[in-house]
Amino acid sequence: MKQCTLCEGTGIVDGRRCEVCHGKGEVEQCLLCGSPIISSLKMEICESCEENHDIVLELDPLAGYSDIIIGKAYLGKVKRMGDVGYFVALNTSISGLIRRRDATKKYMLNQEVVVKAESLRDNRLDFIPLNIEKYTLIPFKKKIPLWRINDITDKAINGAVMIRGIVSRVQRTSGPTIFSIYDETGAIECAAFARGQRAYPAIDVENVVEVRGEVNLRQDKLQIEVKDMEKLYGSRQSVVRDAIDKVIEEEAAPSEIPPLVASPVGEELRGKMLLIAKELRKAVYKGIPILIRHHADCDGFIGGIALDIAIRPLLREHSPDKEAEWHLFRRSPSRAPFYEMEDVVRDLNYSHEDASRFGQSMPLVLIIDNGSTREDMPAIRKFKVYGSKILVVDHHYPGEVKDGKVEVDELVDIHVNPYLVGGDYTFTAGCLGVEIARLINPEVSEKIKHLPGIACSADRAKSEIADAYINIAMKKGYTKEDMLKIAECVDFEAFYLRFMDGKTLVEDFLGLGRLDRQRNLLQVVGSEVERLREQQLKTVLANAKSVKLANNLLLSTLDLDKYSHKFTYPPPGKTTGMLHDIKAGENSKRRTVTLAYGPDFVILRATEDVSRDMGLNVNIFVKELSEELPQAGIDGGGHEVAGSIKFVEGYRKPVLEKLAEKVAKLKA
Amino acid sequence: MKQCTLCEGTGIVDGRRCEVCHGKGEVEQCLLCGSPIISSLKMEICESCEENHDIVLELDPLAGYSDIIIGKAYLGKVKRMGDVGYFVALNTSISGLIRRRDATKKYMLNQEVVVKAESLRDNRLDFIPLNIEKYTLIPFKKKIPLWRINDITDKAINGAVMIRGIVSRVQRTSGPTIFSIYDETGAIECAAFARGQRAYPAIDVENVVEVRGEVNLRQDKLQIEVKDMEKLYGSRQSVVRDAIDKVIEEEAAPSEIPPLVASPVGEELRGKMLLIAKELRKAVYKGIPILIRHHADCDGFIGGIALDIAIRPLLREHSPDKEAEWHLFRRSPSRAPFYEMEDVVRDLNYSHEDASRFGQSMPLVLIIDNGSTREDMPAIRKFKVYGSKILVVDHHYPGEVKDGKVEVDELVDIHVNPYLVGGDYTFTAGCLGVEIARLINPEVSEKIKHLPGIACSADRAKSEIADAYINIAMKKGYTKEDMLKIAECVDFEAFYLRFMDGKTLVEDFLGLGRLDRQRNLLQVVGSEVERLREQQLKTVLANAKSVKLANNLLLSTLDLDKYSHKFTYPPPGKTTGMLHDIKAGENSKRRTVTLAYGPDFVILRATEDVSRDMGLNVNIFVKELSEELPQAGIDGGGHEVAGSIKFVEGYRKPVLEKLAEKVAKLKA
Amino acid sequence: MKQCTLCEGTGIVDGRRCEVCHGKGEVEQCLLCGSPIISSLKMEICESCEENHDIVLELDPLAGYSDIIIGKAYLGKVKRMGDVGYFVALNTSISGLIRRRDATKKYMLNQEVVVKAESLRDNRLDFIPLNIEKYTLIPFKKKIPLWRINDITDKAINGAVMIRGIVSRVQRTSGPTIFSIYDETGAIECAAFARGQRAYPAIDVENVVEVRGEVNLRQDKLQIEVKDMEKLYGSRQSVVRDAIDKVIEEEAAPSEIPPLVASPVGEELRGKMLLIAKELRKAVYKGIPILIRHHADCDGFIGGIALDIAIRPLLREHSPDKEAEWHLFRRSPSRAPFYEMEDVVRDLNYSHEDASRFGQSMPLVLIIDNGSTREDMPAIRKFKVYGSKILVVDHHYPGEVKDGKVEVDELVDIHVNPYLVGGDYTFTAGCLGVEIARLINPEVSEKIKHLPGIACSADRAKSEIADAYINIAMKKGYTKEDMLKIAECVDFEAFYLRFMDGKTLVEDFLGLGRLDRQRNLLQVVGSEVERLREQQLKTVLANAKSVKLANNLLLSTLDLDKYSHKFTYPPPGKTTGMLHDIKAGENSKRRTVTLAYGPDFVILRATEDVSRDMGLNVNIFVKELSEELPQAGIDGGGHEVAGSIKFVEGYRKPVLEKLAEKVAKLKA
Ligand SMILES: [Zn+2]
Ligand SMILES: [Zn+2]
Ligand SMILES: [Zn+2]
Ligand SMILES: [Zn+2]
Ligand SMILES: [Zn+2]
Ligand SMILES: [Zn+2]
Repeated sequence: MKQCTLCEGTGIVDGRRCEVCHGKGEVEQCLLCGSPIISSLKMEICESCEENHDIVLELDPLAGYSDIIIGKAYLGKVKRMGDVGYFVALNTSISGLIRRRDATKKYMLNQEVVVKAESLRDNRLDFIPLNIEKYTLIPFKKKIPLWRINDITDKAINGAVMIRGIVSRVQRTSGPTIFSIYDETGAIECAAFARGQRAYPAIDVENVVEVRGEVNLRQDKLQIEVKDMEKLYGSRQSVVRDAIDKVIEEEAAPSEIPPLVASPVGEELRGKMLLIAKELRKAVYKGIPILIRHHADCDGFIGGIALDIAIRPLLREHSPDKEAEWHLFRRSPSRAPFYEMEDVVRDLNYSHEDASRFGQSMPLVLIIDNGSTREDMPAIRKFKVYGSKILVVDHHYPGEVKDGKVEVDELVDIHVNPYLVGGDYTFTAGCLGVEIARLINPEVSEKIKHLPGIACSADRAKSEIADAYINIAMKKGYTKEDMLKIAECVDFEAFYLRFMDGKTLVEDFLGLGRLDRQRNLLQVVGSEVERLREQQLKTVLANAKSVKLANNLLLSTLDLDKYSHKFTYPPPGKTTGMLHDIKAGENSKRRTVTLAYGPDFVILRATEDVSRDMGLNVNIFVKELSEELPQAGIDGGGHEVAGSIKFVEGYRKPVLEKLAEKVAKLKA
Repeated sequence: MKQCTLCEGTGIVDGRRCEVCHGKGEVEQCLLCGSPIISSLKMEICESCEENHDIVLELDPLAGYSDIIIGKAYLGKVKRMGDVGYFVALNTSISGLIRRRDATKKYMLNQEVVVKAESLRDNRLDFIPLNIEKYTLIPFKKKIPLWRINDITDKAINGAVMIRGIVSRVQRTSGPTIFSIYDETGAIECAAFARGQRAYPAIDVENVVEVRGEVNLRQDKLQIEVKDMEKLYGSRQSVVRDAIDKVIEEEAAPSEIPPLVASPVGEELRGKMLLIAKELRKAVYKGIPILIRHHADCDGFIGGIALDIAIRPLLREHSPDKEAEWHLFRRSPSRAPFYEMEDVVRDLNYSHEDASRFGQSMPLVLIIDNGSTREDMPAIRKFKVYGSKILVVDHHYPGEVKDGKVEVDELVDIHVNPYLVGGDYTFTAGCLGVEIARLINPEVSEKIKHLPGIACSADRAKSEIADAYINIAMKKGYTKEDMLKIAECVDFEAFYLRFMDGKTLVEDFLGLGRLDRQRNLLQVVGSEVERLREQQLKTVLANAKSVKLANNLLLSTLDLDKYSHKFTYPPPGKTTGMLHDIKAGENSKRRTVTLAYGPDFVILRATEDVSRDMGLNVNIFVKELSEELPQAGIDGGGHEVAGSIKFVEGYRKPVLEKLAEKVAKLKA
Repeated sequence: MKQCTLCEGTGIVDGRRCEVCHGKGEVEQCLLCGSPIISSLKMEICESCEENHDIVLELDPLAGYSDIIIGKAYLGKVKRMGDVGYFVALNTSISGLIRRRDATKKYMLNQEVVVKAESLRDNRLDFIPLNIEKYTLIPFKKKIPLWRINDITDKAINGAVMIRGIVSRVQRTSGPTIFSIYDETGAIECAAFARGQRAYPAIDVENVVEVRGEVNLRQDKLQIEVKDMEKLYGSRQSVVRDAIDKVIEEEAAPSEIPPLVASPVGEELRGKMLLIAKELRKAVYKGIPILIRHHADCDGFIGGIALDIAIRPLLREHSPDKEAEWHLFRRSPSRAPFYEMEDVVRDLNYSHEDASRFGQSMPLVLIIDNGSTREDMPAIRKFKVYGSKILVVDHHYPGEVKDGKVEVDELVDIHVNPYLVGGDYTFTAGCLGVEIARLINPEVSEKIKHLPGIACSADRAKSEIADAYINIAMKKGYTKEDMLKIAECVDFEAFYLRFMDGKTLVEDFLGLGRLDRQRNLLQVVGSEVERLREQQLKTVLANAKSVKLANNLLLSTLDLDKYSHKFTYPPPGKTTGMLHDIKAGENSKRRTVTLAYGPDFVILRATEDVSRDMGLNVNIFVKELSEELPQAGIDGGGHEVAGSIKFVEGYRKPVLEKLAEKVAKLKA
């Protein structure tokens, strides 16, 4: 094909259909001399070339009887000899007969022979053999209409189609190589047969291709059996890609559903939340695997599960692979309060395995309730080397904000965090995740709208926004006690789930499954959690020491190593929180600070007023201690009034002494 | 269909065949007016309705040429136009011709047309078009005989069948949805095609269904290709379910093979052992997954493996899924001496995954050599929320027995434990497991009958029952030394196997595989175990301290943390046992007590006479210590003379002092 | 068949073709009387027996119309009754007609009937029924030509073939049982249908079989549909096996590519390296799974990955299973510096699972950068019980060499280690692995030739050989700094990879993938590693103590437990090395020794001159300490100047004191 020179590809000359290309904008070129062909002949040879050459046509595998032109010469192969003559095949589906009386010589099985199409009636084709030795062999490429993938329905079965699209997956099976291809309307699997080899080794994920083949029904699934696949280049490539990208950009545009809770901070974040929703939707359309990592606590689980619930139905709907939700989606909890080196090595290992074994591209990575801090950077940086987009949805303090950016933004593609727009941690990851899930898939909105309230309870978020979310949950029938209990139970499960996603179990706790199960689980697990907390508290309270400092603070200390149950629930951080809450509750009129320490760490909790009125800030303590004890390997941080400090065991005593001193020196 | 009102469904009136229903008990009802149809006509329309309506029949996909009634009107679709006329299809397998001369107008491809069946000869069907606009369309449902699943053999291939049964599994494959269905005779897979959707989304595991379809051979397996599946309700449902339940109850009845060792305790337990055998057999027949959890020591492995060996052949025989033993059976060792929270979270996670991905129901859970104590309860309670039946086979002290019941019985469906009927731990879990395995599948009896002897040796069981079992093993050629060595080796493997089931390896040790391998393994691993034990003992013996107390007891103490190899074999419990056995052996005339402690635990061993004559009981020590040191987080227990006590590290000194005091105060 | 007695199987008599067997060397025997049959008749009955018996032939499933002998009697089955007569089938593909007028009685469907073949034209076969009651039924086994597997190409599709070969895998699928069979030319999968049963249960891996069947194309793969499979015995078996073995021995012969670096040690090792290459190639040809275990450090990864890269393409080329590289190859890192009990239990468990589930044989095991020492023996010994061949490629000191053998050689089948031939650890496992990989598959040589240089840098190898390898890497553009950085980064990844093979990630670091990724990874991970090292060093250097001893040694000590970051990178061994390198560097004129200790171990590093000039040797210290403190559970060892000593915690003080004493007593 060649652009029509008269209309310059527009198909229109002076407002009327171009006479050269009949409005198509393109003209065919003679395969031999290159001159344009205007006639409606089926061959791509101009009339003059046809006269001057002994043209013999070679049919492509898609040609059928209706493509035969009586009188033309074809190259065939002898496939059977019978009493009546020789049966000659032109391709796998067309054959005709050289009557014995017309056969001027004997042919061998599988011998090539040039024949003239003599007559055709009811798919009965008769040939006359042509005894020419020299001829010009011309490929006859059957013209197949270009289909949009979505138009390929049952009616197209056994028919020939041509599609143009982008490859999203290349799976070498024990049978054919399966190319998943999408265009602007949908996706389909194309099976290419190459007798044990990887078919079309030059064609890979992300390439734009033109596929010609036959539609068939394989294992109850529409599939194209590839007869011919071509990688497109240059403008042919970009035209297809641009068209697809344009439609996917439109289709992937998230719904404009209003947030559950309107707030200035939410309004500021909305733009980036829409972008994240769009990226996730695009990944679904493009067959890009999605990897969600979330903090292994109740808030993190809620954020991750909300997205999980929103994305899976889209995968089921849009993917040509019925098991897409298992192949193209993974959600994993991260035990650490950041995206750890162990996590990323695991994620990369499995992503690489999928890539080499199933021809998948590297995943789109979304980190939720983690991902914002400096500690996340080494792992994220490593994933970036493999070209993955990294999306972060977090509510942890991301460090100092300059021009709306923080340190991690040099790596992260889209970063949603209330701190970036003047908000704080009370707009929890669970809230953010639910709002994004609703943008991705508004149909799940009703089902998940009570989750942010639980997330806020779990993260002890106290703010107007948090209260509004909690109210929504209360309207759905959850009391504040219910929410705290659910949060506690999910934390408990998370403690044992480790790397498992715990899908059904956690969903049941969150009231996303059968409600009788939620009730039973809360009763059964709730009482076990209560028992374990009581058991821990009994020992902890008996052994913690509290002193009133000169600055009127109540300082409680506890040796976790000596006076708490280890390697069981509740873990040290939670144990410290429980102790602190009790101490603060018992002394509600006094500002209180709690220090609980192990061999190489100390956990600090303080009432908010110690920060507000006296300037306590864990991060400042960490900084000062690093300077005062440079040889102690000081590290750590957290929120102002809740964090931990790590050190090497040999410095436990001086670190604790200095810390106590600092607390004692605080002034209102 | 409707119950015949004359015979009331019995088919018999006054001892003779009912004339209304011809003895079927049911009469057909006219689809239009509901009046009974007595004639043998193929349509479900009464004669009067047929006269009063323009009846047009719509054939179902299973109807064939022999179902055509000449003269009746049918709804068809134009499928091909030829020179001779229009070919009209009534369903995918029946079509006939409207001759061109009879066609009163032109039809489009796929146009609906009402035709009268004019003549039928040799499957050549001729139609006359009927130009009626208004008519009453009546489904013509081909009557297909009801088959029992077991009767569907190769002879039925390509034939139409109807079955009624219960759904045991619904797997959404990348092709059709596969429903596993069982009736009272067997099970079969039914493939329902729904072009990428989950077929019959309203039909789920446990439902009673009627399936009409065609038998075919798919991948060398007989399968029903579903044409039509209906969920049954009300009495139609209960009739089927009851019939199946009744037969499965009978079929699942365990064999009445006598026990290997007869004993009063065994006799008392036999009823519940039969019930457990029956539950497991029923699970096989019903396609319910089976999950076996056993203690990770030799006795536990023996119990679990005996059941494993008994159940797998049944799965192979009765399941329509050739890989059933991988899909419907899982056996896992539990490291802790109880069913831990970590275990149950893992089990639930994988069961939920199987349920959502493969449409399986939740498993039947059997816990062996664990499961009887209060510590097992939180995990069991959690599984119960998901409706699983819980079976326990244990020989650990289950707490106080009241009316033949213990605390855990509020949760456990069937509980076999010698303590419930006046026996004790010497009837070990391995013995119980082997006896139950024999009830499940008597064919394995000979193969596994030496296992209880090994289990008794492993658990140091000394009693008449244990001796009898040991004798059986001895008759099979195992010396007592062999048995102890096997036990030691299996414990060693269990230490490294962790969560793996170690099937072949442990079976080889137990003499269930090739005997040359057993010999070699025992030699190779036995000497390695010996080396590790020697190495541990050398250090332990040199550093343990022994004193003779005033009450004539020999008390040995050891700081395991300081004076034993850690994180290697033998672990602390076994190390303490070894030390104690040597001390007791060296001082065979003196009652001896051994206390070996780590940072937050102490392990106690005593000779039986200290309990018998002086009343030592670990459980009492635990209780007393909890009261004396309430802030020390005391926990633990065990047998009278073998158990462990946990505490928080800070109280090691007072706990040890008080323990030593208690031992010193014991009086004969 | 029977050896021809005239020519004695040679086919030749007096230089001319034998007249009895027509040169075939074999004569057919009459199935009834055993006398030789000389004619070319299709039946295996001699003429005289044919005359004396009423012979009726029973066709095998492969016989076709061309095998029918007009006039002979056949056993058939009535399959259809029509107006014209009875259609009688002789097997699934041959049937003929008894015309109604010839039918002397009525037949039932499926009734057996003896017929005479009357006429055959164009596959239309006419029968005359024979009313005989007593006859001699003779199997007519169609003679099918023996094919070499490699000759079975597309042209053979739908044709009947016979092959003789060895079974390498028997997979019971949800459909047919799949036998993988290889002969001297190649391998193919043969599908045997047994309606849900394991087909041919007596035939197993390693058996020699004769398969007769039909070639078909299943899922784009040539496969034999088994009609008949027979296990061969005696000489029939050995002839086939010997022929295959002979060819595989030849084919598996490794290429004679010269080493990258020539050296006397390399020359000495070459013989065994060729043997190892051959074993691995043979495993590929024979479908034996390959298991590679390597030390989890940079040198070990290089050795393992070089082999990985060499073997996978062979598997893709030679295996009939397209996913062979996932089914028949596994590479795992071992964290310990020896093949641990945990590793072997895991490996055995998975190998046993594969064996029982997929019918695979036990794997060929290759251990690299581990495997040579006494500590490896218990695990290797265990694998040996299962008959696996064990290959070891190591450069760790294997203990005293006697007659070219060391202790581990009693277990290992082929052992490559420079110490066995007078070399040392500077010929690292990475170098050895790369050289063997080149022998296995010379095509990868260019790609991997820079790896040994990196391995030598990683293991701090300093020798002529190491320098030569490093030079090769430098010529490929790697500076020494690059190599050290890569080594450090791979160690870092190995720390987090644990049991994962990290294929793509580590390959990218090693420059085996995209080079831009290597650059980015080194930059990103390199700086993270640097940060962690700095952080560790800061604490370690501030807290290590150094003293100058009277013997002029600089002794540095560090309490790792108190003064280093634990459970993070760098781990204790590397931390000690870093400290030692700095101390030695700062005091380059002084011999230096570093002792870093934890609760139950001490790591020793010394400059080489302390060993060379003063005789320091960790292994001697271990031996002395064991004698001096027999109760301390002393264990350990290593190189002369780099090793570790373990003890039970309670003896830390005396062990450290004695060690310091020993160091102080060293004399130049
Ligand atoms: Zn959060
Ligand atoms: Zn969180
Ligand atoms: Zn037991
Ligand atoms: Zn046990
Ligand atoms: Zn090495
Ligand atoms: Zn190494």
